[in-house]
Amino acid sequence: MSIMHVVVNAAMSADGKLSSRRREQITISGEADFARVDRLRAASDAVVVGVGTVLADDPHLTVKDDSLTAARRERGESAHPARVVIDSRGRTPLDAAIVDDAATTYVCLSERAPVDKRMDLADRAELVTAGETRVDLQRAFAAIQQAGLEQIMVEGGGELIFSLFEVGLVDELRVFVGPTVIGGRDAPTLADGNGFVSNFPTLSLESVERLGEGVLLTWNAQ
Amino acid sequence: MSIMHVVVNAAMSADGKLSSRRREQITISGEADFARVDRLRAASDAVVVGVGTVLADDPHLTVKDDSLTAARRERGESAHPARVVIDSRGRTPLDAAIVDDAATTYVCLSERAPVDKRMDLADRAELVTAGETRVDLQRAFAAIQQAGLEQIMVEGGGELIFSLFEVGLVDELRVFVGPTVIGGRDAPTLADGNGFVSNFPTLSLESVERLGEGVLLTWNAQ
Ligand SMILES: NC(=O)c1ccc[n+]([C@@H]2O[C@H](COP(=O)([O-])OP(=O)(O)OC[C@H]3O[C@@H](n4cnc5c(N)ncnc54)[C@H](OP(=O)(O)O)[C@@H]3O)[C@@H](O)[C@H]2O)c1
Ligand SMILES: NC(=O)c1ccc[n+]([C@@H]2O[C@H](COP(=O)([O-])OP(=O)(O)OC[C@H]3O[C@@H](n4cnc5c(N)ncnc54)[C@H](OP(=O)(O)O)[C@@H]3O)[C@@H](O)[C@H]2O)c1
Repeated sequence: MSIMHVVVNAAMSADGKLSSRRREQITISGEADFARVDRLRAASDAVVVGVGTVLADDPHLTVKDDSLTAARRERGESAHPARVVIDSRGRTPLDAAIVDDAATTYVCLSERAPVDKRMDLADRAELVTAGETRVDLQRAFAAIQQAGLEQIMVEGGGELIFSLFEVGLVDELRVFVGPTVIGGRDAPTLADGNGFVSNFPTLSLESVERLGEGVLLTWNAQ
Repeated sequence: MSIMHVVVNAAMSADGKLSSRRREQITISGEADFARVDRLRAASDAVVVGVGTVLADDPHLTVKDDSLTAARRERGESAHPARVVIDSRGRTPLDAAIVDDAATTYVCLSERAPVDKRMDLADRAELVTAGETRVDLQRAFAAIQQAGLEQIMVEGGGELIFSLFEVGLVDELRVFVGPTVIGGRDAPTLADGNGFVSNFPTLSLESVERLGEGVLLTWNAQ
């Protein structure tokens, strides 16, 4: 029987922010952490982001290090992991880097996504429909698992990460805490959404490792 | 010449929150961290909070461990450090624990604080006025220093902490990161305020220490 393993990975400032209130991409980590993220991608079957991150950062989400892509090919895998966007209304731009032809991409939509968006995106990605107005993450992840993707890496943002904790889909949380203060009551944080007010998910600290100018915290969800 | 040293100390969840969106006090740390905070208080001349924290948590901010208060007395100091509230409009309640007679309290007001509030608070605290509509932190901290208070511990909340970084008053940031996810785009974070959009304050990681179920990060401001 196959078992899905979901690792959430993100870089936050010392005060818990993923970027500034302008939602611009900010360099929080450094080379050592970039290399670690690249290795984690290369060890994953799929890399998942929310459409908010696609619209803000236009990430490519491919493996950067050639020796890592070569090793994947030697193992009989595609050069890059599959890419997955959680996107209720089909807002992923057709020229987004994430739907280029470097790797397979899944766009997970809700029933609310308009037909024209679906048709355009269908040329560039595999479409998964789950949920009425918002993507039903349980069902979307089950569909991804059906497609043979089991080692899942989630790269943000904070809205998606909160929802994944809410439905209990997170197995591991890896956070690079960087040497910066971003501040801002409206800046995106590691876990946004509505937030918990009771029954807070509890983590256990698996490891603590200094990395570059910051620290990597690895937590297991319980 | 006297030099003021400002340590900001707080406990945040793994996702950077000081409490939930309901602004209720949440146990983020544990006994080992409480004991550390108590020792840090006992080693300080003054403990500072924003009025938001007074209104939300009604903290007493005294030293809890009798052997620590005894050691302070032996050194010729008061049993507890002075307490300081940053409170532009004089909103500190007259029955707040922070203005009881356990220790000296300074309430730092702006010129906007109404006369009746000033008169009531003057019975319970030393009043400092600095700033027109909001407390001018540079001037308020200078006044505190004039009173002979040099080792300063700031215990939050996020609005005050952001402002202190903004004016460059922070020397050290000690953050206990706890094994909980709180989430919430409206939950208080370690540094709120308007947030930086460029020239982010840079920290350097002084030490990393596992403590109880979490980790204590000590950063120096640069
Ligand atoms: N430092 C880092 O490691 C890092 C990593 C990633 C992102 N970021 C930053 O984070 C910010 C973007 O994060 P974000 O939180 O705004 O966006 P996000 O989490 O990437 O995407 C959120 C969007 O996903 C869609 N969605 C669909 N179903 C959902 C569900 N069940 N739960 C949650 N979301 C669902 C929603 O839009 P629809 O309903 O319209 O589909 C929602 O607005 C950017 O500023 C980016 O720079 C930083
Ligand atoms: N986990 C922890 O370690 C910890 C520690 C402390 C607090 N907390 C939590 O944090 C929350 C309260 O934090 P908060 O951010 O709302 O309040 P805060 O930082 O304690 O106080 C902010 C208030 O201080 C006043 N102020 C005056 N001059 C200021 C200046 N120059 N800069 C900033 N503020 C100034 C402002 O009100 P006026 O303009 O009216 O004066 C402002 O609203 C609560 O939920 C509490 O439980 C957690």
